[in-house]
Amino acid sequence: MLDETRDEGAVAAMMADVGRRAKAASRPLAIADAAQKRDALLGMADALVEATGEILAANALDMQNAGEGGMSASFRDRLVLDEERVRAMADGIRAIADLPDPVGEVIASWVRPNGLAIERVRTPLGVIGVIYESRPNVTADAGALCLKAGNAVILRGGSDSINSSTAIHACLVKGLTRAGLPADAIQIVPTTDRAAVGEMLKGLEGTIDVIVPRGGKSLVARVQAEARVPVFAHLEGICHVYVDASADLDMAKSIVVNAKMRRTSVCGAAETLLVDHKAAGTHLVPLVDALRQAGCEIRGSAAVVDMVPDIGRAVEADWSSEYNDAIISVMLVDGVAGAIDHIARYSSNHTEAVVAEDAQVVERFFNEVDSAILLHNASTQFADGGEFGMGAEIGIATGKMHARGPVGVEQLTSFKYRVRGSGQTRP
Amino acid sequence: MLDETRDEGAVAAMMADVGRRAKAASRPLAIADAAQKRDALLGMADALVEATGEILAANALDMQNAGEGGMSASFRDRLVLDEERVRAMADGIRAIADLPDPVGEVIASWVRPNGLAIERVRTPLGVIGVIYESRPNVTADAGALCLKAGNAVILRGGSDSINSSTAIHACLVKGLTRAGLPADAIQIVPTTDRAAVGEMLKGLEGTIDVIVPRGGKSLVARVQAEARVPVFAHLEGICHVYVDASADLDMAKSIVVNAKMRRTSVCGAAETLLVDHKAAGTHLVPLVDALRQAGCEIRGSAAVVDMVPDIGRAVEADWSSEYNDAIISVMLVDGVAGAIDHIARYSSNHTEAVVAEDAQVVERFFNEVDSAILLHNASTQFADGGEFGMGAEIGIATGKMHARGPVGVEQLTSFKYRVRGSGQTRP
Repeated sequence: MLDETRDEGAVAAMMADVGRRAKAASRPLAIADAAQKRDALLGMADALVEATGEILAANALDMQNAGEGGMSASFRDRLVLDEERVRAMADGIRAIADLPDPVGEVIASWVRPNGLAIERVRTPLGVIGVIYESRPNVTADAGALCLKAGNAVILRGGSDSINSSTAIHACLVKGLTRAGLPADAIQIVPTTDRAAVGEMLKGLEGTIDVIVPRGGKSLVARVQAEARVPVFAHLEGICHVYVDASADLDMAKSIVVNAKMRRTSVCGAAETLLVDHKAAGTHLVPLVDALRQAGCEIRGSAAVVDMVPDIGRAVEADWSSEYNDAIISVMLVDGVAGAIDHIARYSSNHTEAVVAEDAQVVERFFNEVDSAILLHNASTQFADGGEFGMGAEIGIATGKMHARGPVGVEQLTSFKYRVRGSGQTRP
Repeated sequence: MLDETRDEGAVAAMMADVGRRAKAASRPLAIADAAQKRDALLGMADALVEATGEILAANALDMQNAGEGGMSASFRDRLVLDEERVRAMADGIRAIADLPDPVGEVIASWVRPNGLAIERVRTPLGVIGVIYESRPNVTADAGALCLKAGNAVILRGGSDSINSSTAIHACLVKGLTRAGLPADAIQIVPTTDRAAVGEMLKGLEGTIDVIVPRGGKSLVARVQAEARVPVFAHLEGICHVYVDASADLDMAKSIVVNAKMRRTSVCGAAETLLVDHKAAGTHLVPLVDALRQAGCEIRGSAAVVDMVPDIGRAVEADWSSEYNDAIISVMLVDGVAGAIDHIARYSSNHTEAVVAEDAQVVERFFNEVDSAILLHNASTQFADGGEFGMGAEIGIATGKMHARGPVGVEQLTSFKYRVRGSGQTRP
């Protein structure tokens, strides 16, 4: 372990080696059969449970280094592990082990008039770089997901969790080697030097096929600004709920409260409530009251403030804020067209919901809003790979290239064409 | 039209405006119905035929500016237009008009145990930047393909073809406006200043969703090195044919000659012949003779030179050369494993063929070679969207992200999720 290496050349050389080893491991991994990968994953889960003591000791060291007294509650919650969390990590890996193996799946097949039989077949992407912050469980989740899809992975977690991540990583490697897969299939960056991230963003001499940033806004922004390799964009979730005049009010109340308050820290949490101005007299006050009763702070537009007593006034920045907290901005809009325009301007294209009984309103919202996930009469908090039935996910992609929405094992694959002939030449 | 603008700020401002207009056009375009896009495309085709005189006059000016006397035959062939080529462009657009509209297609749908009905639906990508060289017909092809998929497009052709491309572009705009679609849906960069390409590669203030480079190695290399937005990678085609000892010799001869010689300038042309050393005594000389009779120059490895008289010796650079000419490199390899290793080292991951009767050899080749297109007992020259039954294409992608292999209208789309509920909230 190199700590805070100051010599950039040394970091670059070390990271180039990490890249070469990942690339070398990716070839046998790409052709490993489903049973072998499953064995490796089950072995990782067992190893995690067996090593619970070591993992918790490493985590205690991280907590101590971070200065337990001074850290915020949310930071502490991200970093801290206990026996139950280690067991949850192991269970998560077992669930990934039991997913269908995506590699080799025939996605489409057809025969040409000249007899050529064409198949489009899923393949691994190759080498994935995952850059994340201080949640040690991402080490296990991301390592397992990438492996299931036949990819080698280079994990770069936050320096605050380096001891926890290293202990978890050792368990992943045990699972790999016990199943006869290369240890280099899952590597953890062996330094906390930030220059290592820069090297990953440059692609490690062409060895990294895609970077997945998983973390807060500033991490994702740095990755998107600096990366010279493809990135699965994971922007923040500035999610909207639009309540149409045709909405059932009780349904709207329960959806809005759930979308905002079930968990305020998830990317699928709603940040802005848009209410049809035609329903201002009937729906606005009850919706705001329901949110307030649930403990939510309200920041209204001028028109909303005029109609609802005792709420704060939203400023321009509120419409593009991901609060990660029990705060919501509220605006009256001119029907579904007004909602569509507001969302086009302020959304991060993650998830938006429409609550309406008018089918034409729903159709228009579904056609014209350009976000990864659109929901009708359901909470935005369903924006989750597990809830979609896609299994574990590495995040929700807000870009439009390759993966959009939940990024699970299927989204961590590419494909190739296999064409079978009987001597065909092209005229 | 600004020519050779020297003020970089002016180019940046002009290009930012191009980007904003494309972005603005992309919204109505994304929700335009299939019939309207089809009308626009048919209108473009008619306008091209009607304007044949103007287009040929503009092309004559380009030819004159390029100095007709001094240009190479291949450059001339790329740049020159005649009545038949204009008609072919129009016919190409009509064929695109008749393709199924990809936008709104439900790619997958399923229902969750809680009753949420999930659909994955094709959407446009948004704004596509196409950077190409001196083939004026790309203006028509790329403009029409992007429009069919509901995308706005910014076209940047080579400066040598600027007058031809501008005349063709005017016809595309006629088709758009006659059908009631925004003229800005297909824009041509209004300057030949190379700084405009740099601005496009920076993404025009976030307005460009993806860049498609279409041209030679140096153009693609510049785009890949400088682009700050996603790129559909189109590397050169260093395509291989592997002839196994189990191959039918006559079939192998006809496939090898076709793969190399049918058209030597296409990206699917073979550049290297790999022959199983177990078949050196039976297959090597007849294969080389067939190629020589077809007019091909042979560059052999040391072992090949020892066995075949009167051929040149390949140097290291030959194994990674796209000749675009009647030249082939030939090597003996240690069976399919040797072929796989050679291809992993030298291929551009475009297209490779195996000629073999042994099913295990084919299976191994199909599993272990990581290129976009793999063919068994068929010519590499089938690497083409039309031959795949996918309609017109903008190129063959060699990257693994989003699009791989032929990039047709479907590959120029993204998708979103539409989820229909009845009041579901997440527990």
